[in-house]
Amino acid sequence: MKGGPTKTALAVIPEEECWELLRSQDVGRIAVRLGDSLHIFPINYLVTDHSIVFRTDSGTMLAAVHTADPVAFEIDQIDAGLASGWSVVVEGRAEEILDTVEIGRLEATALRPWAPGRKAHFVRVTARSVSGRRIVEVVPTVT
Amino acid sequence: MKGGPTKTALAVIPEEECWELLRSQDVGRIAVRLGDSLHIFPINYLVTDHSIVFRTDSGTMLAAVHTADPVAFEIDQIDAGLASGWSVVVEGRAEEILDTVEIGRLEATALRPWAPGRKAHFVRVTARSVSGRRIVEVVPTVT
Repeated sequence: MKGGPTKTALAVIPEEECWELLRSQDVGRIAVRLGDSLHIFPINYLVTDHSIVFRTDSGTMLAAVHTADPVAFEIDQIDAGLASGWSVVVEGRAEEILDTVEIGRLEATALRPWAPGRKAHFVRVTARSVSGRRIVEVVPTVT
Repeated sequence: MKGGPTKTALAVIPEEECWELLRSQDVGRIAVRLGDSLHIFPINYLVTDHSIVFRTDSGTMLAAVHTADPVAFEIDQIDAGLASGWSVVVEGRAEEILDTVEIGRLEATALRPWAPGRKAHFVRVTARSVSGRRIVEVVPTVT
Protein backbone atom coordinates (compact mmCIF):
# COMPACT_ATOMS: atom_id res chain seq x y z
CA MET A 1 0.00 0.00 0.00
CA LYS A 2 1.13 3.49 -0.79
CA GLY A 3 0.66 6.59 1.25
CA GLY A 4 -0.93 8.79 -1.38
CA PRO A 5 -3.70 8.09 -3.85
CA THR A 6 -2.78 5.83 -6.77
CA LYS A 7 -2.45 7.59 -10.10
CA THR A 8 -4.22 5.88 -12.95
CA ALA A 9 -4.26 6.24 -16.70
CA LEU A 10 -6.34 4.75 -19.49
CA ALA A 11 -4.37 2.47 -21.79
CA VAL A 12 -5.70 1.59 -25.22
CA ILE A 13 -6.28 -2.15 -25.66
CA PRO A 14 -5.08 -3.28 -29.11
CA GLU A 15 -7.85 -4.50 -31.41
CA GLU A 16 -6.81 -8.16 -31.43
CA GLU A 17 -6.77 -8.18 -27.62
CA CYS A 18 -10.26 -6.62 -27.67
CA TRP A 19 -11.45 -9.61 -29.71
CA GLU A 20 -9.75 -12.00 -27.28
CA LEU A 21 -11.60 -10.31 -24.41
CA LEU A 22 -14.86 -10.49 -26.36
CA ARG A 23 -14.32 -14.22 -26.93
CA SER A 24 -13.55 -14.73 -23.23
CA GLN A 25 -16.91 -13.39 -22.01
CA ASP A 26 -20.50 -14.42 -22.61
CA VAL A 27 -22.62 -11.52 -21.33
CA GLY A 28 -22.59 -7.94 -22.60
CA ARG A 29 -24.97 -5.05 -23.13
CA ILE A 30 -26.29 -3.73 -26.40
CA ALA A 31 -27.60 -0.21 -26.86
CA VAL A 32 -30.12 0.41 -29.61
CA ARG A 33 -32.18 3.34 -30.72
CA LEU A 34 -35.85 3.07 -31.55
CA GLY A 35 -37.58 6.29 -32.50
CA ASP A 36 -36.77 8.88 -29.87
CA SER A 37 -35.64 6.39 -27.22
CA LEU A 38 -32.39 4.65 -26.38
CA HIS A 39 -32.55 1.21 -24.84
CA ILE A 40 -29.91 -1.04 -23.27
CA PHE A 41 -30.36 -4.79 -23.03
CA PRO A 42 -28.06 -7.32 -21.39
CA ILE A 43 -27.52 -10.23 -23.78
CA ASN A 44 -25.50 -13.38 -23.93
CA TYR A 45 -23.55 -13.60 -27.12
CA LEU A 46 -21.06 -15.46 -29.26
CA VAL A 47 -18.20 -14.09 -31.34
CA THR A 48 -18.07 -15.42 -34.91
CA ASP A 49 -15.85 -13.99 -37.64
CA HIS A 50 -15.26 -10.71 -35.84
CA SER A 51 -18.96 -10.13 -35.30
CA ILE A 52 -21.23 -10.42 -32.27
CA VAL A 53 -24.13 -12.85 -32.58
CA PHE A 54 -27.05 -13.11 -30.17
CA ARG A 55 -30.62 -14.34 -30.03
CA THR A 56 -33.70 -12.30 -29.41
CA ASP A 57 -37.46 -12.47 -29.47
CA SER A 58 -39.57 -10.15 -31.54
CA GLY A 59 -40.07 -6.91 -29.64
CA THR A 60 -38.22 -3.65 -29.09
CA MET A 61 -34.83 -5.19 -29.82
CA LEU A 62 -35.81 -6.78 -33.12
CA ALA A 63 -37.70 -3.67 -34.20
CA ALA A 64 -34.58 -1.61 -33.48
CA VAL A 65 -32.43 -4.06 -35.44
CA HIS A 66 -34.72 -3.70 -38.44
CA THR A 67 -34.23 0.09 -38.48
CA ALA A 68 -30.59 -0.56 -39.47
CA ASP A 69 -29.52 2.31 -37.20
CA PRO A 70 -26.11 2.06 -35.51
CA VAL A 71 -25.85 0.02 -32.33
CA ALA A 72 -23.19 -0.26 -29.64
CA PHE A 73 -22.21 -3.34 -27.67
CA GLU A 74 -20.14 -3.29 -24.50
CA ILE A 75 -18.42 -5.68 -22.12
CA ASP A 76 -16.44 -4.74 -19.05
CA GLN A 77 -14.90 -5.93 -15.82
CA ILE A 78 -14.53 -3.01 -13.50
CA ASP A 79 -13.86 -2.70 -9.79
CA ALA A 80 -14.51 0.93 -8.92
CA GLY A 81 -13.19 0.47 -5.39
CA LEU A 82 -9.86 -0.80 -6.66
CA ALA A 83 -9.85 1.66 -9.57
CA SER A 84 -9.06 -1.23 -11.88
CA GLY A 85 -10.67 -2.84 -14.87
CA TRP A 86 -11.26 -2.69 -18.59
CA SER A 87 -14.02 -2.22 -21.10
CA VAL A 88 -14.44 -3.07 -24.77
CA VAL A 89 -16.99 -1.41 -27.05
CA VAL A 90 -18.07 -2.62 -30.48
CA GLU A 91 -19.85 -0.08 -32.64
CA GLY A 92 -21.59 -1.18 -35.79
CA ARG A 93 -24.82 -2.18 -37.41
CA ALA A 94 -27.08 -5.04 -36.49
CA GLU A 95 -28.99 -7.24 -38.89
CA GLU A 96 -31.14 -10.28 -38.51
CA ILE A 97 -29.59 -13.50 -39.81
CA LEU A 98 -32.06 -15.04 -42.25
CA ASP A 99 -29.88 -17.68 -43.94
CA THR A 100 -31.28 -21.02 -42.78
CA VAL A 101 -27.95 -22.84 -43.15
CA GLU A 102 -26.26 -20.27 -40.94
CA ILE A 103 -29.11 -20.41 -38.42
CA GLY A 104 -28.77 -24.19 -38.30
CA ARG A 105 -25.07 -23.82 -37.60
CA LEU A 106 -25.72 -21.27 -34.86
CA GLU A 107 -28.39 -23.43 -33.26
CA ALA A 108 -25.74 -26.11 -32.82
CA THR A 109 -23.46 -23.75 -30.89
CA ALA A 110 -23.31 -22.94 -27.20
CA LEU A 111 -25.37 -19.79 -27.82
CA ARG A 112 -28.27 -20.75 -25.60
CA PRO A 113 -30.29 -17.83 -24.29
CA TRP A 114 -30.22 -17.73 -20.49
CA ALA A 115 -33.20 -15.41 -20.40
CA PRO A 116 -36.56 -17.06 -20.96
CA GLY A 117 -38.42 -17.00 -24.23
CA ARG A 118 -37.82 -18.87 -27.44
CA LYS A 119 -35.58 -16.14 -28.84
CA ALA A 120 -36.00 -17.52 -32.31
CA HIS A 121 -34.30 -14.59 -34.05
CA PHE A 122 -30.54 -14.49 -34.54
CA VAL A 123 -28.92 -11.09 -34.86
CA ARG A 124 -25.42 -10.24 -36.00
CA VAL A 125 -23.60 -7.02 -35.10
CA THR A 126 -20.93 -6.36 -37.69
CA ALA A 127 -18.21 -4.26 -36.13
CA ARG A 128 -17.44 -0.94 -37.75
CA SER A 129 -15.08 -0.18 -34.89
CA VAL A 130 -13.79 -1.97 -31.81
CA SER A 131 -12.14 -0.09 -29.00
CA GLY A 132 -10.90 -1.07 -25.58
CA ARG A 133 -9.60 0.79 -22.58
CA ARG A 134 -7.83 -0.51 -19.52
CA ILE A 135 -7.22 1.38 -16.29
CA VAL A 136 -3.55 1.14 -15.48
CA GLU A 137 -1.64 2.29 -12.46
CA VAL A 138 0.93 4.95 -13.23
CA VAL A 139 4.24 4.81 -11.44
CA PRO A 140 5.35 8.40 -11.01
CA THR A 141 8.77 9.15 -12.39
CA VAL A 142 11.09 10.87 -9.96
CA THR A 143 12.11 14.25 -11.33
CA MET B 1 -29.88 -30.60 -9.09
CA LYS B 2 -32.64 -31.54 -11.48
CA GLY B 3 -32.50 -33.94 -14.39
CA GLY B 4 -33.87 -31.65 -17.07
CA PRO B 5 -33.01 -28.09 -17.99
CA THR B 6 -34.16 -25.45 -15.54
CA LYS B 7 -37.08 -23.34 -16.72
CA THR B 8 -36.64 -19.63 -16.20
CA ALA B 9 -38.87 -16.61 -16.40
CA LEU B 10 -38.28 -12.86 -16.22
CA ALA B 11 -39.81 -11.24 -13.16
CA VAL B 12 -40.39 -7.50 -13.03
CA ILE B 13 -38.44 -5.80 -10.24
CA PRO B 14 -40.64 -3.18 -8.51
CA GLU B 15 -39.46 0.40 -8.98
CA GLU B 16 -38.43 0.96 -5.34
CA GLU B 17 -36.32 -2.21 -5.45
CA CYS B 18 -34.73 -0.95 -8.68
CA TRP B 19 -33.62 2.17 -6.80
CA GLU B 20 -32.28 0.04 -3.94
CA LEU B 21 -30.24 -1.95 -6.48
CA LEU B 22 -29.02 1.27 -8.09
CA ARG B 23 -27.94 2.55 -4.67
CA SER B 24 -26.15 -0.75 -3.93
CA GLN B 25 -23.83 -0.52 -6.96
CA ASP B 26 -21.23 1.98 -8.09
CA VAL B 27 -20.46 1.11 -11.72
CA GLY B 28 -22.90 1.12 -14.64
CA ARG B 29 -22.95 1.87 -18.35
CA ILE B 30 -24.50 4.83 -20.05
CA ALA B 31 -25.57 4.84 -23.69
CA VAL B 32 -25.68 8.16 -25.50
CA ARG B 33 -26.30 9.24 -29.05
CA LEU B 34 -24.13 11.76 -30.83
CA GLY B 35 -25.02 12.45 -34.44
CA ASP B 36 -25.37 9.13 -36.22
CA SER B 37 -23.46 7.12 -33.63
CA LEU B 38 -24.36 5.35 -30.41
CA HIS B 39 -21.76 5.14 -27.68
CA ILE B 40 -21.60 3.20 -24.41
CA PHE B 41 -19.36 4.29 -21.55
CA PRO B 42 -18.79 2.55 -18.24
CA ILE B 43 -19.12 5.09 -15.45
CA ASN B 44 -19.07 5.16 -11.69
CA TYR B 45 -22.05 6.95 -10.31
CA LEU B 46 -24.04 8.06 -7.31
CA VAL B 47 -27.79 8.03 -6.78
CA THR B 48 -29.23 11.30 -5.47
CA ASP B 49 -32.95 12.10 -5.33
CA HIS B 50 -33.92 9.38 -7.80
CA SER B 51 -31.38 10.54 -10.35
CA ILE B 52 -28.00 9.20 -11.48
CA VAL B 53 -25.05 11.56 -11.07
CA PHE B 54 -21.61 11.01 -12.54
CA ARG B 55 -18.51 12.96 -13.52
CA THR B 56 -17.05 13.33 -16.96
CA ASP B 57 -14.44 15.24 -18.91
CA SER B 58 -15.27 17.30 -21.94
CA GLY B 59 -15.42 15.03 -24.97
CA THR B 60 -17.94 12.76 -26.67
CA MET B 61 -19.92 12.19 -23.48
CA LEU B 62 -20.32 15.85 -22.58
CA ALA B 63 -21.12 16.76 -26.19
CA ALA B 64 -23.84 14.09 -26.19
CA VAL B 65 -25.21 15.38 -22.88
CA HIS B 66 -25.49 18.85 -24.35
CA THR B 67 -27.66 17.59 -27.23
CA ALA B 68 -30.38 16.85 -24.62
CA ASP B 69 -31.21 13.62 -26.48
CA PRO B 70 -32.47 10.66 -24.45
CA VAL B 71 -29.89 8.49 -22.71
CA ALA B 72 -30.08 5.06 -21.09
CA PHE B 73 -28.17 3.84 -18.06
CA GLU B 74 -27.84 0.21 -17.06
CA ILE B 75 -26.54 -1.92 -14.21
CA ASP B 76 -26.63 -5.69 -13.98
CA GLN B 77 -25.31 -8.76 -12.25
CA ILE B 78 -25.67 -11.70 -14.56
CA ASP B 79 -24.22 -15.18 -14.57
CA ALA B 80 -25.02 -16.64 -17.98
CA GLY B 81 -23.75 -20.06 -16.96
CA LEU B 82 -26.11 -20.23 -14.02
CA ALA B 83 -28.91 -18.51 -15.96
CA SER B 84 -29.35 -16.16 -13.04
CA GLY B 85 -29.14 -12.45 -12.50
CA TRP B 86 -30.87 -9.14 -12.82
CA SER B 87 -30.63 -5.86 -14.66
CA VAL B 88 -31.97 -2.36 -14.06
CA VAL B 89 -32.30 0.27 -16.78
CA VAL B 90 -32.89 3.99 -16.25
CA GLU B 91 -34.10 5.91 -19.28
CA GLY B 92 -34.14 9.67 -19.22
CA ARG B 93 -32.38 12.84 -20.14
CA ALA B 94 -28.95 13.98 -19.04
CA GLU B 95 -27.95 17.51 -18.20
CA GLU B 96 -24.81 19.09 -16.88
CA ILE B 97 -25.04 20.35 -13.30
CA LEU B 98 -23.99 23.99 -13.30
CA ASP B 99 -25.16 25.11 -9.84
CA THR B 100 -21.95 25.75 -7.89
CA VAL B 101 -23.56 25.00 -4.51
CA GLU B 102 -24.69 21.62 -5.78
CA ILE B 103 -21.30 20.94 -7.34
CA GLY B 104 -19.65 21.76 -4.01
CA ARG B 105 -21.96 19.31 -2.28
CA LEU B 106 -21.22 16.61 -4.86
CA GLU B 107 -17.47 17.17 -4.60
CA ALA B 108 -17.75 16.31 -0.90
CA THR B 109 -19.34 12.93 -1.67
CA ALA B 110 -17.80 9.57 -2.40
CA LEU B 111 -18.24 10.18 -6.13
CA ARG B 112 -14.59 9.99 -7.03
CA PRO B 113 -13.87 9.05 -10.63
CA TRP B 114 -11.86 5.81 -10.80
CA ALA B 115 -10.89 6.51 -14.38
CA PRO B 116 -8.12 9.03 -14.87
CA GLY B 117 -8.70 12.64 -15.84
CA ARG B 118 -10.01 15.54 -13.84
CA LYS B 119 -13.61 14.86 -14.83
CA ALA B 120 -14.60 18.32 -13.80
CA HIS B 121 -18.12 18.13 -15.21
CA PHE B 122 -21.01 16.72 -13.18
CA VAL B 123 -23.91 15.23 -15.11
CA ARG B 124 -27.34 14.26 -13.82
CA VAL B 125 -29.59 11.73 -15.52
CA THR B 126 -33.16 12.41 -14.49
CA ALA B 127 -35.16 9.21 -14.77
CA ARG B 128 -38.18 9.22 -17.03
CA SER B 129 -38.55 5.51 -16.45
CA VAL B 130 -36.84 2.85 -14.36
CA SER B 131 -37.31 -0.80 -15.10
CA GLY B 132 -35.78 -3.95 -13.72
CA ARG B 133 -35.90 -7.61 -14.64
CA ARG B 134 -34.76 -10.62 -12.67
CA ILE B 135 -34.30 -14.12 -14.04
CA VAL B 136 -36.21 -16.49 -11.79
CA GLU B 137 -36.41 -20.23 -11.79
CA VAL B 138 -39.84 -21.58 -12.54
CA VAL B 139 -41.02 -24.60 -10.62
CA PRO B 140 -43.22 -26.56 -13.00
CA THR B 141 -46.67 -27.32 -11.69
CA VAL B 142 -47.66 -30.95 -11.84
CA THR B 143 -50.65 -31.39 -14.11
